[in-house]
Amino acid sequence: MDNLTESSRRVVADLRELANLTSDENGAQRVAWSPTWQKARDWFSEKAIEAGATIEIDAAGNSWAKITGESEESVVIGSHIDSVTNGGWLDGALGVVAGLEILRIYDKTKPAKTIYVVTFADEEGVVYGSSVMGSSAATGNFDVNNIINRLSKDGVSAKDLLANYHVDVENINDAKAQLEARKMIAFLELHIEQGPVLEEMNKQVACVYGVQGIERHMIEFTGQPAHAGSFPTLMRKDAFLAAAEATLAFREVALKYDGVCTVGKVSVEPDVPTIFPGKCNISLDQRSINKDLLKAMYEEAQNITNEMAKKHQVEVKWDEIYSIDPTLFDENLVKLCQEAIIEETGEETTMFSGPLHDAVEMARIAPTIMMFVMSKGGLSHNKDEDTPDVAIEIATRAFIRLVDKVVNK
Amino acid sequence: MDNLTESSRRVVADLRELANLTSDENGAQRVAWSPTWQKARDWFSEKAIEAGATIEIDAAGNSWAKITGESEESVVIGSHIDSVTNGGWLDGALGVVAGLEILRIYDKTKPAKTIYVVTFADEEGVVYGSSVMGSSAATGNFDVNNIINRLSKDGVSAKDLLANYHVDVENINDAKAQLEARKMIAFLELHIEQGPVLEEMNKQVACVYGVQGIERHMIEFTGQPAHAGSFPTLMRKDAFLAAAEATLAFREVALKYDGVCTVGKVSVEPDVPTIFPGKCNISLDQRSINKDLLKAMYEEAQNITNEMAKKHQVEVKWDEIYSIDPTLFDENLVKLCQEAIIEETGEETTMFSGPLHDAVEMARIAPTIMMFVMSKGGLSHNKDEDTPDVAIEIATRAFIRLVDKVVNK
Repeated sequence: MDNLTESSRRVVADLRELANLTSDENGAQRVAWSPTWQKARDWFSEKAIEAGATIEIDAAGNSWAKITGESEESVVIGSHIDSVTNGGWLDGALGVVAGLEILRIYDKTKPAKTIYVVTFADEEGVVYGSSVMGSSAATGNFDVNNIINRLSKDGVSAKDLLANYHVDVENINDAKAQLEARKMIAFLELHIEQGPVLEEMNKQVACVYGVQGIERHMIEFTGQPAHAGSFPTLMRKDAFLAAAEATLAFREVALKYDGVCTVGKVSVEPDVPTIFPGKCNISLDQRSINKDLLKAMYEEAQNITNEMAKKHQVEVKWDEIYSIDPTLFDENLVKLCQEAIIEETGEETTMFSGPLHDAVEMARIAPTIMMFVMSKGGLSHNKDEDTPDVAIEIATRAFIRLVDKVVNK
Repeated sequence: MDNLTESSRRVVADLRELANLTSDENGAQRVAWSPTWQKARDWFSEKAIEAGATIEIDAAGNSWAKITGESEESVVIGSHIDSVTNGGWLDGALGVVAGLEILRIYDKTKPAKTIYVVTFADEEGVVYGSSVMGSSAATGNFDVNNIINRLSKDGVSAKDLLANYHVDVENINDAKAQLEARKMIAFLELHIEQGPVLEEMNKQVACVYGVQGIERHMIEFTGQPAHAGSFPTLMRKDAFLAAAEATLAFREVALKYDGVCTVGKVSVEPDVPTIFPGKCNISLDQRSINKDLLKAMYEEAQNITNEMAKKHQVEVKWDEIYSIDPTLFDENLVKLCQEAIIEETGEETTMFSGPLHDAVEMARIAPTIMMFVMSKGGLSHNKDEDTPDVAIEIATRAFIRLVDKVVNK
């Protein structure tokens, strides 16, 4: 633990080296199953081997860098190295590159537990629309049917594209047995916040005690389109008015239950200036860290759309897109993480995550914890994503302290 | 005036004949500058010549069927025979076919005034997006630049397509001098309502005393898109929330000023479920029969968007698409039209029009009046557009009475 400062600076330097290697003027281009992604993986493997690790690739294309410890039981550190198209330099890469430094630290002395640094494949789901593919395959929870018949925008099937990277889509869940053999007793992920909360609180680093659950639906309002000039206001069955009023009410629901409600997709038909809409489709993404409150938010949103449909004389129909319960991380790891942050910064900061992460998949099968570092302006998934070097260094040092506590506990 | 019943039945029969000739299972297909439109025009010309009229085609492709009267001064009756794609059997055709019956009536005795029945070209603007083309060219108000460089969806220029119908786009406004030579002292148009007002009042026919003015704009709200999970509600700059709240307020403005406000086009960016919108574009179409109230509605809508932009921390920008003052028709013709309707139905019904019509163009240069017949369910611009035969017959008889009053006044 003597060279913490040096270690944390090396992490920043490694991140910049990776960014230079895999970004262009529009940002990071490490899209999963692309040559640039492979370049990033090769870069990582080379550095990991230099650090004394061995590399194993599992059935889902996840890369496992291993330092054998006194015990076969393993502490797994990791994240993903793939980015969205025109992404940021830190999303995912931070957790993997911090792991690389941890390999260097533990290669010097045989650790009490075996250490793996995992680089999960395809967290972002850019090509086939299915996120956390690698980590969900490693818990045996990836539904192959989600992608087996999909084509990339270049018309390439998942089977053909993944075969180029030695992954057989149909057997991707074999990664589960491979992970079981690794006897994981804890999973630790360092990630950027991708939101504005820490910056707003003027904090650099936080213990993440859980990840919000999600209820995501499409809502369709159906009225009767007619001419903008000839239909009096009170006779209209305007589908957009119902959707607009519901959207404003969803915001109040979010405030009431301390969750979030987002209407991100909006379309109307026939979508011309002189006809009021007969149809309006919106997406509603609701999130809460509390399962009961998430349920309450979902039910209240349904009541709202029924009420608005009645008020505006339209029909309403809900279709589920995605649903996941909130994840609460392991209580002991939360304590260790808070201790590590207090040791490094002198204060405790704890929050939950809005976005999903590979850690949510790992939490299904083992004690798991995440640590966040602040994001400038809360920006992510674009080239302006950034975190000051000093914050990355503080977070890296706190994370190394956390790993030490878990490996040697 | 003895054979009014017979005349009105002949109009219904003619309308059905035209519909059979120019519709398919999806509705009327008399799109301007198409072979089916030409078939409808040929059908009309043949019938008009049979009725004793001569046909003149002007520089804009408008067809003028003439019965010479005692005076060179002319009463012009007309509408359009073009439809939208998959349109209704009555929109436009009613006014032209009623005109055909009027030719038959006045051919029997030389009328006091010369009578023209005009079939205006391209009222709907389907192919090049520019409505009331023929009638606005006939008042010299058509801006050739609006279509000179446009292509149809098949990639044909207006110049080439219209040349097939002996119209030289660049000289389309020559129709103005041709109309001046016709010494028009009145223009009369019978049209379906295309709205639900008369049906709601349980009336068949109405005198139309004017046409609403329009303020049509695109409004762009610009906030800052970010992740649906990681951005707390109160920190969001959600462009769609601003647009939604403005849209609901526009409805109140419409009710307050007894006009209409329609948000017909809506789009958001990036339009994905997990990101709240950084941009939202909406169209706002505002209409009123009163110029001052239209101005007040427009100004109040601007205040609303400024207020909503401030509330939701977004920017707002307005762009004009279209603007036209309300049209109030000639007071003497309104009186004659009301008298004709009272004679036919025993009661007076007067209303204004929401949609634009060729009559608005004619009103720029001569005393003008319109008469409406009810539309079932207020539907138009689709194959379900309909009016019961009995209502068409009542309206036709009232219209023939009106023509008589104007020709012999």
